[in-house]
Amino acid sequence: MQTRFDITTSGPGLYEFTRQVADWATGTGLLTLFVQHTSASLVIQENADPEVQADLQNYFARLVPPTSDPSMAYLTHTYEGPDDMPAHIKAALLLTHLSIPVTGGVLALGRWQGVYLFEHRDRPHLRRVIAHLA
Amino acid sequence: MQTRFDITTSGPGLYEFTRQVADWATGTGLLTLFVQHTSASLVIQENADPEVQADLQNYFARLVPPTSDPSMAYLTHTYEGPDDMPAHIKAALLLTHLSIPVTGGVLALGRWQGVYLFEHRDRPHLRRVIAHLA
Amino acid sequence: MQTRFDITTSGPGLYEFTRQVADWATGTGLLTLFVQHTSASLVIQENADPEVQADLQNYFARLVPPTSDPSMAYLTHTYEGPDDMPAHIKAALLLTHLSIPVTGGVLALGRWQGVYLFEHRDRPHLRRVIAHLA
Repeated sequence: MQTRFDITTSGPGLYEFTRQVADWATGTGLLTLFVQHTSASLVIQENADPEVQADLQNYFARLVPPTSDPSMAYLTHTYEGPDDMPAHIKAALLLTHLSIPVTGGVLALGRWQGVYLFEHRDRPHLRRVIAHLA
Repeated sequence: MQTRFDITTSGPGLYEFTRQVADWATGTGLLTLFVQHTSASLVIQENADPEVQADLQNYFARLVPPTSDPSMAYLTHTYEGPDDMPAHIKAALLLTHLSIPVTGGVLALGRWQGVYLFEHRDRPHLRRVIAHLA
Repeated sequence: MQTRFDITTSGPGLYEFTRQVADWATGTGLLTLFVQHTSASLVIQENADPEVQADLQNYFARLVPPTSDPSMAYLTHTYEGPDDMPAHIKAALLLTHLSIPVTGGVLALGRWQGVYLFEHRDRPHLRRVIAHLA
């Protein structure tokens, strides 16, 4: 059983889509989500306090600054913009895929866990996530 | 086939549970482990020298210092303690789930690979890991 | 359905093996790749511009310098060489396994996504990746 979730982003940050995933998943098996991009990630994070999501975004913005920052002058892949190579680095540090057990249509998420797409580029993007359940 | 491993932690660091997982896994398929928390992680690491696990813990403690550290003053989610938001960041940098092929009841782990829960919080916790094999 | 890919490396960096994986994968299911080492990783990254792979390697070399670097003097697992403990740390930051949906023998990779082994050690190594498709 496969489907695709299309997620519209408008700048860096976390975009929750737990509800769409939970509504789609039925039966019992292993759910895998796979993002078809190298400048956006998937992450499971706390869904209670929006400050957590903002803090995550700010931490990664400092850990991997734009290539316009002097500390990143050694990077060579810069012609797609100052946010491009840092986006690839963040994609390597984070996840391209997530797997979550499903039992009787219920995701095995903990109480505070939500499923997010983490956008790393500045400009708006349409992000495609393939879902596979078996 | 699903089960749950409960792992008791007493402060930051790596807690091995390879044996419990190996004893439970039978048959042939894909084993997935999923931790139901956003302040603890799963990691596969060297099981030979305990120094490796201590060094890992120390590296991540420096990469993501407590919010009491001046370098982390920009973080806003601080009211659950100085170790809380760093725990979420470490959980994003590390893994919520692991998948390991199993053949005839034997995990496809390399000779030096062990399965660990990586606790990021200071106080004792009971951590739940869902195991799914199919 | 399982197989093993043997990948020969000659120093730190990304080694693409998308073609071998795509040629082997048939039918419909979930493909999981699992690297049997704690000093090498798997990563999905941009396959268009080789600069991206070099930049990734350079970023991680700075984020986790060799233990000969004064900033890493706190590490204790140093007797296997200055590149050993940093290799374990990079393996914790990156991935031991990848899962990719497969439909009718086609991997669900996006247009710019390639599958890479990321070698973290200086000396040549033979790296084993287990592939599981079901």
